[in-house]
Amino acid sequence: MNKIITISREFGSGGRELGRRLAKKLQFAYYDKEIIEEIAQRTSLAESYIENVMDHQPMIAYPVRMGVSLQSLNLIQMPSQQIYQAQYEIIKEAAERSDCIIVGRCADYILREMSPLRVFVYSDLPSKIKRCTERKKEYETFTEKELKKNIEKINKGRSQYYSFYTNQHWGAPSNYDLCVNTTHLSIEKAADAIMRFFL
Amino acid sequence: MNKIITISREFGSGGRELGRRLAKKLQFAYYDKEIIEEIAQRTSLAESYIENVMDHQPMIAYPVRMGVSLQSLNLIQMPSQQIYQAQYEIIKEAAERSDCIIVGRCADYILREMSPLRVFVYSDLPSKIKRCTERKKEYETFTEKELKKNIEKINKGRSQYYSFYTNQHWGAPSNYDLCVNTTHLSIEKAADAIMRFFL
Repeated sequence: MNKIITISREFGSGGRELGRRLAKKLQFAYYDKEIIEEIAQRTSLAESYIENVMDHQPMIAYPVRMGVSLQSLNLIQMPSQQIYQAQYEIIKEAAERSDCIIVGRCADYILREMSPLRVFVYSDLPSKIKRCTERKKEYETFTEKELKKNIEKINKGRSQYYSFYTNQHWGAPSNYDLCVNTTHLSIEKAADAIMRFFL
Repeated sequence: MNKIITISREFGSGGRELGRRLAKKLQFAYYDKEIIEEIAQRTSLAESYIENVMDHQPMIAYPVRMGVSLQSLNLIQMPSQQIYQAQYEIIKEAAERSDCIIVGRCADYILREMSPLRVFVYSDLPSKIKRCTERKKEYETFTEKELKKNIEKINKGRSQYYSFYTNQHWGAPSNYDLCVNTTHLSIEKAADAIMRFFL
């Protein structure tokens, strides 16, 4: 069976960087934004739309976003279901193809029968704000208050999306093998440490 | 400043074994039961009594255990305070003496200004039952139900003791740098991984 690491991560905690470093060190395939691109190809939905759905509670997000009435709720669930179905298949295929690291997208749950190493990456809010300001150009003009609000909104959305499809609590230690707090830990060292489980 | 690792651990999760292995690998001093022995020396209280206090919510445990009335609550808080005070001093002294690993006893909180690597070790209940049955002779005669009840009682007590003195939630990821789930992970590999943070 292939070796798989799933990385669930709070927005702003450096989970993506940790995933990339690990993939490079271990020479594993790496899937992150690639999953969105592939969903877009398979469903003909726009990448920005897919990303938006994944960062919001799927049921609640639609009526507002798509301007439809509550009566047509059955119809408007379709894109969300379509996205999750494509996501599910793409993640399964990736895990069956080779050793890999998959960031986000409920991969820990989707691949639970393949016993992945399930990592959750988190940090405190000041550290998230610092990371976002330093690494994301689009946040340069944000006030600290706006940035805080944005980070919390995205993480709330991720939590809701995860709970909705897995019926599990996002970030609850029991769902993961390792939880890594990047507030004080170096991501380089965390990658060094995690790769020991595969040596 | 000395290098310090604090290990908080659910009873039955292998946290003590992880601590011992890490201490051996890193050649750090190791404190666990030694703290109880030292508290006993300094307070003249029995080791079994001290251990009992640490595995129960200190305020609630006393009236029942010592058969005193609620009116004398101020008086009966004394041994608990005395124990915590000795524990606090012993842990501080140990951390100032040399690089070390300290298991349990609110060390993560007591030493928070020395920036220890704070590890929380946990596992699921079946794995705890298996570990206890395999490693503790006194549990050989217990039924699974009795064992489960005992494990849950001890962990509830640890949680209450920790919350009482730290005003923090025991096992909440934000209080730790690493949370390690030993349900599927090898403790040997976890020790290998954690030591990377000190190399």
